[in-house]
Amino acid sequence: MNDIFLNRAARPIQKLVAYDPGHDLPRLRERFGDIIVELGSNENGWGTSPKAVEAVVKAARDSFRYPDPLGLGLRARLADKHDCSEEEIVLGNGSHELLMQLAQVFAEPGDEVIYSRYGFAVYPIGTRAVGATGIAVDPFPRDHAMPLGTDLSQIPKAITERTKIIFVANPNNPTGTHFRIEDLKALLQQVPKHIPVVVDEAYTEFANAEGLESAISLRREFANLVVSRTFSKAYGLAGLRVGYLVAHREVCELINRLRESFNVNLLGLAAAEAALDDHEHLARVREGVLTQRARIAEALTQLGFFVFPSQTNFLLVDFHRRAQPIEDALFERAVIVRPMVPYGLPNCLRITVGNPAETDRLIASLIEAKDAA
Amino acid sequence: MNDIFLNRAARPIQKLVAYDPGHDLPRLRERFGDIIVELGSNENGWGTSPKAVEAVVKAARDSFRYPDPLGLGLRARLADKHDCSEEEIVLGNGSHELLMQLAQVFAEPGDEVIYSRYGFAVYPIGTRAVGATGIAVDPFPRDHAMPLGTDLSQIPKAITERTKIIFVANPNNPTGTHFRIEDLKALLQQVPKHIPVVVDEAYTEFANAEGLESAISLRREFANLVVSRTFSKAYGLAGLRVGYLVAHREVCELINRLRESFNVNLLGLAAAEAALDDHEHLARVREGVLTQRARIAEALTQLGFFVFPSQTNFLLVDFHRRAQPIEDALFERAVIVRPMVPYGLPNCLRITVGNPAETDRLIASLIEAKDAA
Repeated sequence: MNDIFLNRAARPIQKLVAYDPGHDLPRLRERFGDIIVELGSNENGWGTSPKAVEAVVKAARDSFRYPDPLGLGLRARLADKHDCSEEEIVLGNGSHELLMQLAQVFAEPGDEVIYSRYGFAVYPIGTRAVGATGIAVDPFPRDHAMPLGTDLSQIPKAITERTKIIFVANPNNPTGTHFRIEDLKALLQQVPKHIPVVVDEAYTEFANAEGLESAISLRREFANLVVSRTFSKAYGLAGLRVGYLVAHREVCELINRLRESFNVNLLGLAAAEAALDDHEHLARVREGVLTQRARIAEALTQLGFFVFPSQTNFLLVDFHRRAQPIEDALFERAVIVRPMVPYGLPNCLRITVGNPAETDRLIASLIEAKDAA
Repeated sequence: MNDIFLNRAARPIQKLVAYDPGHDLPRLRERFGDIIVELGSNENGWGTSPKAVEAVVKAARDSFRYPDPLGLGLRARLADKHDCSEEEIVLGNGSHELLMQLAQVFAEPGDEVIYSRYGFAVYPIGTRAVGATGIAVDPFPRDHAMPLGTDLSQIPKAITERTKIIFVANPNNPTGTHFRIEDLKALLQQVPKHIPVVVDEAYTEFANAEGLESAISLRREFANLVVSRTFSKAYGLAGLRVGYLVAHREVCELINRLRESFNVNLLGLAAAEAALDDHEHLARVREGVLTQRARIAEALTQLGFFVFPSQTNFLLVDFHRRAQPIEDALFERAVIVRPMVPYGLPNCLRITVGNPAETDRLIASLIEAKDAA
C-alpha cells in the first residue's frame, strides 16, 4: 500500500483485520476436482434440502424483483416456531451480519464488549469495527470437563459501566463445548438488565447433551436476551445467507434502523421457508451428524489425539504437537480442514463432521497423515 | 417503545431513521393479484435474464456450500469488462451495502460527507449511521436544463478539512438527471486527492445522452474516484443482491476489512456472471426502456405534467399540485408508483419505465386519475 487512503480511514478501520474465511475452496475444488473432501467450514454434508432446492428453482424467474424488505413470510414462520411475535424476529444476511450490527447498534469507541477467549472470531471483529474494546474472559482450563469452553461465571466479574453487549455461543465455535441452561440463567440473573446478552446458537440443532437447551425459553424472563440462529448449518443453506435474531422488539427495532432493507435475498427467503418445512431432511442431517461425530471422536481418540467434547457438526482436535504438518498431509490427500492458528491453538485442527463417505476418507487419511512431520 | 434499550444504543443509532423501501409490494401482490403493475422500485420490466435463471437453477443444489468469499469468478469478469485488476473490484450485497460501508470506512463523528440535496436516500443514512454530518449541496434550480440535478460546481465550495467522502450519482436517483463527464473531470481536478469521490452509476446502462459517460474512464487519472454499479436494474437481478465498486486497490482493501466474507450469496454470484454474458437480454432491456421512456414522457407532457429529463429507467413527474390524490387513484387501479414526500417533493411521483403492457396500463390509468383530488 502507498497508504494514500489508509491514513484517511476512520480510526477503527485503520486497525481492523478482516475475518479469515479459511481455505480458498473454489480454487481447491478446481485443483482437486471431485475427490476433494471439504471439512473446513462446517457445511452440511447431507446437502441442501430438496424442498429448498425446489423453492429456489420455482422462484428463480422472480429474481428481477426486490426481495420482501420485511421478510414477512419467513418471519411469520419463525415467530410461529419460536412462539413469539414477528416484531421479535429480525433477519440477517447470515447471522454474521447480525452479529456485526449488534456491535454497531450498542457499542462505540470507549465502550466494552465481553466474549469468551475461544469464541467465534466475528465477536472481536465486530467490536473492533466500531472502535470498542473487546474484553475476552478466560475460558475453562484444559483439564475441565468443557476444556477451553465458555466459563459463564467469569463474565459478571468483567462487567463495568462501559459494558455494552455480551456475546456467548452455545454450543461454542471453535471448541464445540456447551453450557447448561441453568448456568445461563444464573448469568442472566447477574447481568444488569439493560446490557444485551447475545447467545449465538448457530449449531444448536446438533446438540444432544442433557441440560443444553435453547436460550429462547428464557426470553420472556430476560428482556435483554438476544438469540442468534442461522440456516447455514443444520438447514444446509450456507450459500444463501439467511440468519436471524430472536430478541426484544426494541432491540429488533434498533437493528432495523441500520439494516439495509433488502439485506436478505429473494431466493434465500424462499429457500429458508421451504427448509423449515423439510422436517425429514433436518432429521436425517441431525441423526447423521450425531452418528458420524461419535464415530470420528472414537477413531481419533484411539489414534491418540485429544478430541474436545462437541455438541456441534465439527470436532476440535488437539494433536499434542504443532498440527500444521498433519494439516498439510491431509491437504495432499484432498482432505481440507481448518487450522486453528488464528484462534491461538496451533496444536489443534477443527474438523467438520461430514457424511459417512467423507468420514471414511477423513479417518483413512488421518491414519496415513498422523505421523507427518 | 418502553425505551429499555433505546437510550443504551450508540449515539448515531439513537437518531437514525431506517431507509424507506416504499410500498409493501408482497402484500399488494396478494391483494391485487396478477393485475398489479409495479412501477415503484425501478425494477426491470423485461424480467430476469434467461441465462441468469439457468445459472440459478443449475447452482441451486450447491446452496449448502458457502459462497466464494473472494467472488473471484465474477470479479475476474468485471475486471475484464472494466479493464482493471481484480484487486480494484469489491462486491457488495447490492450497492446499498457498499455505500453504507464506504461511509463507515471513511467517516466518524465530527466528519462531514457531501452529497446533492436530491440524491439517493442511502447517502444521508450511511452518513448518519456513523455519526458523521451530512452536507447537502444545492442542486440546479427548477428552471435549469437539469432541474434539481446535481450541480457539481457547488461541491468544491462545501469541502472543509472535515470532509471525508463525497457521493454523487450519474444519472441521479430520484431526479433522473445527469451530468457530463467533462463536468465530473472538472470537479475531480478541484477535490483534494485524498477525498474519495463516489460516483453511483446504478442506472448508467439506460443512458443515451451526449456527454454522459461512465466515470470509469477517469479512474487511472484520479485515484480517489470510486464507481458504484449494480446488477439490480439493467441486469434484472434486484432479488439476488449483487453490486460492486471499481476503486483504487487501497479503497477496496479497506472495505474488505469490514466486509463480511460471505456477503454476496452463491446464487447471486452465479447469476451475475451469467447475466454479464447475456448481451441479448441487456440490449432488449435497454432498447425497451429507451422506447417506453420516450413514450411515457411524451404522453405525460401532453397531459400537462412536467417530466424531468431522465437517463434512467424511471421518470420523475411533477403534477403541479400535491401528488398524493393522483397516487391514490393510480393505486386503486393497481398501478403502484413511488411517492416523493420522503425526498421533500410532495408534488412529484417517481414512476418506473416498465414494459409496453405496463406502459399501456400506466398511461390509461393516469388519464383516468389525473383529475383526482
